[in-house]
Amino acid sequence: MEGQAMQSLFTANNLWMLVATCLVFIMHLGFSTLEAGFVQRKNVVNILFKNVMILAIGLLSYCVIGFNLMYPGADYAGGFFGFAGFGLSAPEGEAAAIEYASGKYTYWTDFIFQAMFAATAATIVSGAVAERIKLNSFLIFSILLVSFVYPITGMWKWGGGWLNEAGFYDFAGSTLVHAMGGFAALAAVLVVGPRRGKFLPGGVIKPIPGHSMPLAAIGVFLLWFGWFGFNGGSVLSADPMAVSLVFVTTSLAAAAGAVGAYIVSGLMFKNHDLSMVLNGILGGLVGITAGADLMTPLSAIAIGFIAGCIIPASVVFFDKIKIDDPVGATSVHLVCGIWGTLAVGVFGSKAGLGQLWVQFYGVLAVGAFTFAAAFAFMYLLKVTVGVRVSEKEEVVGLDVEEHEMHAYSDTVDPMLELVK
Amino acid sequence: MEGQAMQSLFTANNLWMLVATCLVFIMHLGFSTLEAGFVQRKNVVNILFKNVMILAIGLLSYCVIGFNLMYPGADYAGGFFGFAGFGLSAPEGEAAAIEYASGKYTYWTDFIFQAMFAATAATIVSGAVAERIKLNSFLIFSILLVSFVYPITGMWKWGGGWLNEAGFYDFAGSTLVHAMGGFAALAAVLVVGPRRGKFLPGGVIKPIPGHSMPLAAIGVFLLWFGWFGFNGGSVLSADPMAVSLVFVTTSLAAAAGAVGAYIVSGLMFKNHDLSMVLNGILGGLVGITAGADLMTPLSAIAIGFIAGCIIPASVVFFDKIKIDDPVGATSVHLVCGIWGTLAVGVFGSKAGLGQLWVQFYGVLAVGAFTFAAAFAFMYLLKVTVGVRVSEKEEVVGLDVEEHEMHAYSDTVDPMLELVK
Amino acid sequence: MEGQAMQSLFTANNLWMLVATCLVFIMHLGFSTLEAGFVQRKNVVNILFKNVMILAIGLLSYCVIGFNLMYPGADYAGGFFGFAGFGLSAPEGEAAAIEYASGKYTYWTDFIFQAMFAATAATIVSGAVAERIKLNSFLIFSILLVSFVYPITGMWKWGGGWLNEAGFYDFAGSTLVHAMGGFAALAAVLVVGPRRGKFLPGGVIKPIPGHSMPLAAIGVFLLWFGWFGFNGGSVLSADPMAVSLVFVTTSLAAAAGAVGAYIVSGLMFKNHDLSMVLNGILGGLVGITAGADLMTPLSAIAIGFIAGCIIPASVVFFDKIKIDDPVGATSVHLVCGIWGTLAVGVFGSKAGLGQLWVQFYGVLAVGAFTFAAAFAFMYLLKVTVGVRVSEKEEVVGLDVEEHEMHAYSDTVDPMLELVK
Repeated sequence: MEGQAMQSLFTANNLWMLVATCLVFIMHLGFSTLEAGFVQRKNVVNILFKNVMILAIGLLSYCVIGFNLMYPGADYAGGFFGFAGFGLSAPEGEAAAIEYASGKYTYWTDFIFQAMFAATAATIVSGAVAERIKLNSFLIFSILLVSFVYPITGMWKWGGGWLNEAGFYDFAGSTLVHAMGGFAALAAVLVVGPRRGKFLPGGVIKPIPGHSMPLAAIGVFLLWFGWFGFNGGSVLSADPMAVSLVFVTTSLAAAAGAVGAYIVSGLMFKNHDLSMVLNGILGGLVGITAGADLMTPLSAIAIGFIAGCIIPASVVFFDKIKIDDPVGATSVHLVCGIWGTLAVGVFGSKAGLGQLWVQFYGVLAVGAFTFAAAFAFMYLLKVTVGVRVSEKEEVVGLDVEEHEMHAYSDTVDPMLELVK
Repeated sequence: MEGQAMQSLFTANNLWMLVATCLVFIMHLGFSTLEAGFVQRKNVVNILFKNVMILAIGLLSYCVIGFNLMYPGADYAGGFFGFAGFGLSAPEGEAAAIEYASGKYTYWTDFIFQAMFAATAATIVSGAVAERIKLNSFLIFSILLVSFVYPITGMWKWGGGWLNEAGFYDFAGSTLVHAMGGFAALAAVLVVGPRRGKFLPGGVIKPIPGHSMPLAAIGVFLLWFGWFGFNGGSVLSADPMAVSLVFVTTSLAAAAGAVGAYIVSGLMFKNHDLSMVLNGILGGLVGITAGADLMTPLSAIAIGFIAGCIIPASVVFFDKIKIDDPVGATSVHLVCGIWGTLAVGVFGSKAGLGQLWVQFYGVLAVGAFTFAAAFAFMYLLKVTVGVRVSEKEEVVGLDVEEHEMHAYSDTVDPMLELVK
Repeated sequence: MEGQAMQSLFTANNLWMLVATCLVFIMHLGFSTLEAGFVQRKNVVNILFKNVMILAIGLLSYCVIGFNLMYPGADYAGGFFGFAGFGLSAPEGEAAAIEYASGKYTYWTDFIFQAMFAATAATIVSGAVAERIKLNSFLIFSILLVSFVYPITGMWKWGGGWLNEAGFYDFAGSTLVHAMGGFAALAAVLVVGPRRGKFLPGGVIKPIPGHSMPLAAIGVFLLWFGWFGFNGGSVLSADPMAVSLVFVTTSLAAAAGAVGAYIVSGLMFKNHDLSMVLNGILGGLVGITAGADLMTPLSAIAIGFIAGCIIPASVVFFDKIKIDDPVGATSVHLVCGIWGTLAVGVFGSKAGLGQLWVQFYGVLAVGAFTFAAAFAFMYLLKVTVGVRVSEKEEVVGLDVEEHEMHAYSDTVDPMLELVK
């Protein structure tokens, strides 16, 4: 392609990646309001604080170390580990920019899109350990996760490592982002333990309802909105056929996830459970993420529908085995992330037993490494600085104890009496 | 145009249509928070549930049947009805993609943009019948509306049918989306009846305030945001002059709608009524939608201003004739939709008596068909499964009765006593 | 460049400017929820009303007069003042459109992007004078600010005026938008005075907590989201290297702002103050705005970090000198705006003592003009129609007194008794 038309196509491709960056960014607001909605009123400031800080810390640590761990270039150790040095260093000049990533986007675009992605992985954990983890321990854990675990396992596939060589397929991260985050969440929950009063003697499981369904619903809509950039941006260009197909499969899977959760939760609980339908949408989105570019509309509907059906069963299952996850993050990101990864071997243009087997050991490898590392980090934090707030803090609420604030201030002005 | 430059322009055009799809998508969050804000606290989960499910069901049913009813290709019955078969079938190959829709966007882009549009039509109804309709009856009604009524009337104009032949003009759907949804809402409200306690003996009209003005305001801002995609995407390409003019006319009409509603509601009620100003913005947006590409800035301001002035009068009028619409959907979408359609014959480059007459019978035809079909569907539901919740459910609230949840859970932790 | 490739690049450039317009638009929702979250429950409808009306009035008055004051073309008076006439007038034809702004965007795009920008300037004031200013006086003040003060000082630099000639640099408006809005806010606060009960006898400063931290957090995320368009759109094309670098510097500065505020507020207050971290992000964003296109990632982090560190100190300082600003707008927009302007002389490719001096007198000139004009307008309003609500209105709340509404309606349905 000649220079002028190439410059023009380069501009359009790069533009889409930047818009996708904005969309992935807004997923952080989605996670924030979803998690805020699903926790109790007394812990809302805390969960907002964590989500804000994770984004900030995630971007900075990915800039300092993560990006160059995840995309080390030629500098490998057997496809398992590589590092291209601290900080960012853009290629010089406009010509170099066009050559970067085969003329589809600039070095800066590459970094900022990947950095927004990376920060989502840490956010997945925050919901699962909400309402009882110590703030600073959680922030240290997040730094370690975004700086090391996510980039190393990410490199195995997207950085051209051994899983990529093996034929493992994970288009936008059912495993590399969502199951990764879910495995880390599971490890963290096991170390931190359930909230006080959740699992009572005699096998009684006490429901602890979230404090605001509108916030939760806002979160899910924003996550779906952001997923257009998360999956659509993973095309890594504005290629019209590829991006538009991804929009269709992503949307249909989300819609089918809602319907699946609606039907199964209706059968299981004999009601219309909004939180199940909301998580059904997220399950459908996580499920389609590994193969969003490979599926027909019908396959996308099937994958999303099954993910939605899984959600209510999975939530009940984790409650049964006393894994306390206030927002259902393990069901959404871990279980549906695994399902979506395997679905690449079942549906779509790569389906087959061989592929299914690669998908299986890919998720197993990422899961084992992530779980072990996350468990070790959290355990070390437990035996050193501690990971759990005091009983008093937990009961009174983290907002008052850690932040000296209330999420909602409804106090009537004392001067009101003077006027009436 | 030669191949490379064409590929590049195709990419930019398709990119805008996908971004517009994202923007129209987020209108569903706008509708959700607007309607949630305008209903009572006891019915918030229910309205969120409906809005989430409508989007899911709308996308799926438009995929299965609606899209091919609305754009049947050559396969007509006199411009009134056509059907190109169930499900989606993309043309093969990249070359086919560029030829699709004159090289402006792909088949997948076409479908997903139109599907997001279609789902908005059903959403308009949900606000009007809020707080007393049975959930499952409403969902069935929505499926019928999105699968049949919206695509058939839409085909009359946008699918190349008889109204298009007749010269009817409706750029982005003042009639085909908004008045259509408004007529369906009116029919549904007439069958379902007003909320208990709204119209008291002796002509007393009891105001039932919405439970959260912040949610309502968030909704209006998001709807305006989404309207950039709704109207801007209706250019069906990224044509710089056309899309940017549409951005200007849309914004100025919305702004003038706010000012119109501010002045008229100030004169009528002697206060500064936030809900009127919010609905004034929406009225301005609905009003400009039919001719957003035809107007000068000044004409756009005039159309929006008049729409804004209409809102307070219309809300009072519907209250007077005992049409109970908790969110003002009939005033915004039906009345301002009709106004916007007629305005194409009054302002802008197509103005003229002949055009005004075509606009008039276009909206009449779409309205008559929609109203009759919606009334028939709702009436059939009434005499079979029922459309109205029981008195107890309505008084206690749909959240507890249909969903076994509260929108807000403010309960103080009983363990708190142990610590203090 | 030949015609076809040029058309294609023009389309991509223009598309980005329109998407950036959408992003700047949504900042108005960000400001609305931020300010709503930081005020008391009794004044929420009022602050929402003001933010909605400012946007509407801002767009309309910028259309009528502001745009042609800010970009007067050749029609100057010594680089200090010019006016190209009332209303909008687009150049004719598609060819003219491509020639407009060197083929990067259309006249309409130029107007609507600039108009969204202009409206943000007025919004900055609304938070600072919240909870005690008269609604209509505030709206008149906003019209004057957007119609005259913002465009005249904006012209000095962006319209090619004397500050531009002098070498003053302000990429996206640390001075021209943020410090400008901050100076106007400071002048307005001085005239209007503090809220009753804020500064008690004996030097006691009473904290008046905001009513909803989730709304405030939503606001900050949306503002960051919008800032991608605010700074990214200020490239005035979709130039891949320039826009993507701006995305990186903007994000890293925001992240570093959060960390700076986290550390300093932790040291100062011995807690984890969410409102400080939120304002730290905004401080980082305001700080990077003047030089977002000039900085390396490391410089961006330094600028944002320093801005974040400034926030807690500045908030305490303004409290000490009895400047009552409920949302911290002066700290965020005025102080960090000045910092960001000066930082262009300290960091990045233009750093140097000469530049620092120009930056200094640029912000001084804009500040002096804005402060004087805003003080004069507000003072004139004070001695004519009055700017302050009555004691009763302030104590009872503006929502009930000016709007006859509550932001939240929690009343239990009286019919509930009949059923139970």
